[in-house]
Amino acid sequence: MPLLVMKFGGTSVADLDRIKNAALKVQREVERGYDVIVIVSAMSGKTNELVGWVEATSPLFDAREYDAVVASGENVTAGLMALTLQEMGVPARSWQGWQVPINTTAAHSAARFVDIPRHNIDQKFAEGMKVAVVAGFQGLSPEGRITTLGRGGSDTTAVAFAAAFGAERCDIYTDVDGVYTTDPRITSKARKLDKIAFEEMLELASLGAKVLQTRSVELAMRYKVRLRVLSSFEDTDETSGTLVCDEDEIMESKVVSGVAYSREEAKITLVTVEDRPGISAAIFAPLAEAGVNVDMIVQNISEKDYEDHPGSVTDMTFSCPVSQVARARKAMEEAKAAGHIAYDDLVVDTEVCKVSVVGIGMRSHAGVAARMFKALADENINIKVISTSEIKISVLIDRKYMELAVQALHDAFELEQA
Amino acid sequence: MPLLVMKFGGTSVADLDRIKNAALKVQREVERGYDVIVIVSAMSGKTNELVGWVEATSPLFDAREYDAVVASGENVTAGLMALTLQEMGVPARSWQGWQVPINTTAAHSAARFVDIPRHNIDQKFAEGMKVAVVAGFQGLSPEGRITTLGRGGSDTTAVAFAAAFGAERCDIYTDVDGVYTTDPRITSKARKLDKIAFEEMLELASLGAKVLQTRSVELAMRYKVRLRVLSSFEDTDETSGTLVCDEDEIMESKVVSGVAYSREEAKITLVTVEDRPGISAAIFAPLAEAGVNVDMIVQNISEKDYEDHPGSVTDMTFSCPVSQVARARKAMEEAKAAGHIAYDDLVVDTEVCKVSVVGIGMRSHAGVAARMFKALADENINIKVISTSEIKISVLIDRKYMELAVQALHDAFELEQA
Repeated sequence: MPLLVMKFGGTSVADLDRIKNAALKVQREVERGYDVIVIVSAMSGKTNELVGWVEATSPLFDAREYDAVVASGENVTAGLMALTLQEMGVPARSWQGWQVPINTTAAHSAARFVDIPRHNIDQKFAEGMKVAVVAGFQGLSPEGRITTLGRGGSDTTAVAFAAAFGAERCDIYTDVDGVYTTDPRITSKARKLDKIAFEEMLELASLGAKVLQTRSVELAMRYKVRLRVLSSFEDTDETSGTLVCDEDEIMESKVVSGVAYSREEAKITLVTVEDRPGISAAIFAPLAEAGVNVDMIVQNISEKDYEDHPGSVTDMTFSCPVSQVARARKAMEEAKAAGHIAYDDLVVDTEVCKVSVVGIGMRSHAGVAARMFKALADENINIKVISTSEIKISVLIDRKYMELAVQALHDAFELEQA
Repeated sequence: MPLLVMKFGGTSVADLDRIKNAALKVQREVERGYDVIVIVSAMSGKTNELVGWVEATSPLFDAREYDAVVASGENVTAGLMALTLQEMGVPARSWQGWQVPINTTAAHSAARFVDIPRHNIDQKFAEGMKVAVVAGFQGLSPEGRITTLGRGGSDTTAVAFAAAFGAERCDIYTDVDGVYTTDPRITSKARKLDKIAFEEMLELASLGAKVLQTRSVELAMRYKVRLRVLSSFEDTDETSGTLVCDEDEIMESKVVSGVAYSREEAKITLVTVEDRPGISAAIFAPLAEAGVNVDMIVQNISEKDYEDHPGSVTDMTFSCPVSQVARARKAMEEAKAAGHIAYDDLVVDTEVCKVSVVGIGMRSHAGVAARMFKALADENINIKVISTSEIKISVLIDRKYMELAVQALHDAFELEQA
């Protein structure tokens, strides 16, 4: 029997009516001849309520207890979804993480999958069950305690089940109807993509397009799980949404597939840093320890020879989310006070954003960067930092130009045309 | 290390402040040198929310899914309580039913305990844990699915753990400060009892005093678990509340310990029933099948020989909760239509209540019934049905006299005096 994994996020199961709506989509796939594994999130708002209670109880909480409390939201949805399907006449039952069992590492609140034995669920399919409803976002540690995978873990659960059970496809139902060339709120010319390669989706996901969690896309790419993103709130059929797949499945791809952005970025520059081997490690190790997610890094290898700095010095610039600036500053000041690094000044610019163009076609096409920079220059947008990878080019610019830059790049790469 | 079981009901853990208040009581027992097993209910209102969702989803729900959903309320409280204790510096962890495991029968929503292996929890106590916080009301079926024990199951969980772990005492914290001679809302003369025998508590619990679930008292009596009922919301010490214990622990008991009542009773009389062997079974079997909780039964063995009923006939009277009258009537009419029983008329009186006096002292004292009937007669209260057991006498009377009857009986047996 061909098997499908279907995942419904928090807004897709926010109340009993929406759970019923989701169940109707599951029923249709069963009628088409599929066995289905449904992965559910907590009803929207529930996880926040539980997290709020834990944090209010204990600011430095025991992550094992946090997980035990927070995972209960998904258990409720799983039971309600199984009941809804039964009510429609579809043989279904719920599975909590420990019942499958979904074996994970013991890294509570950030657990990783170890393995998902098929035996228990396969046996129920053999006995006539058509749908296994599995609570997402959770697992079982080697010590027999409940783990969670961190936010967005339900997408990852879905991909892991699709890989473990050899699913034909993993459908991620959410509150958008697919992956767009850019955010439709910024330009009405944004176009829904029929297909996108794993690598591109990965860049888009990590660059701030909130459709799919990075980790789930990584896992899908590794196990070649075909992912489909589609809407819970529209009538959908086999051609709906966007298929995230191996690039072999995409016949002709454009040079650039999409324009992504990240609004709340900050740029931090350490001015006049002593330039010596090991200086990068001395700067970025304390930032990592402080939990700062450093994104772009640029080192101006200047050989300027200041009067009071007779050796080789440099300026070191990096970006991170605005919310982490205070932490980053504290880490740098402590490292300086401890004598691990030396710099004259720490300059923070919290008024920047990141705009990126992404496309696997870039690999074989030159001139993408030039075309990007020209489009921005034509709008008099100053580029503050540039960073590139094989399939993307990112720039930091003043935040006030963000929408303008996205629109200009969308036009420059003619993304409104399929 | 001596061990104590402490149970906190839904109102005692209704929010984070109350959970903290409960945790302070646990901490004090740890400081006194006890290892503690804490049994928690769901935060008040949560179970009703979950039950509401299940019932709205599926009127004839799969009890296995019902249990999986509903048990999650207790899991949340268990985690939050463990975190609260940790925050106070008390080594604690939470246990869900399947983690202990609390092995039960597979009778979902009404499961019974099979056994509670001590190994896992004992090992953690040996490693330095001082408090095991266990989610009440739930267990694990032989098939590895989550079961629940039915409403009030958390009290029963507490007693079962006290029995399994040989606890010195099982303290039930609730929203009242003990067991009273009668309901203090009905007479201000009601007095808190320091001690009460299991048998008496059992009669009081099943007669409508809502302090403890009948089933938990039965279990406590069987395993000689000393139960203490006390308030979550007051400062308490080792002498607070009411101790429910073996009668051997009660030096001098009064003839009557308390007056109980049940307001919403109905009296149903089958008029002119054919009196033959097997007629009782023919009447009460269909009532049991219809889920009617028949309480008192009185058969007037009248040898009246009506013109149209030449054989021996009788009137059969029984009582049940008012809410079950429609079901009872339907069961009787169907049994009559099917020819299993015959009667001339079915008379329902929904305006009655039950008042009872309870006391182990009755066993050795005569004249209790006479004293009770005289007290009611002095108030011109007519008795409609009488039923007695070894340690209680119950009467059905008009509902409008209920408060008057309770007050009169409380006075007649001098219960305001210790």
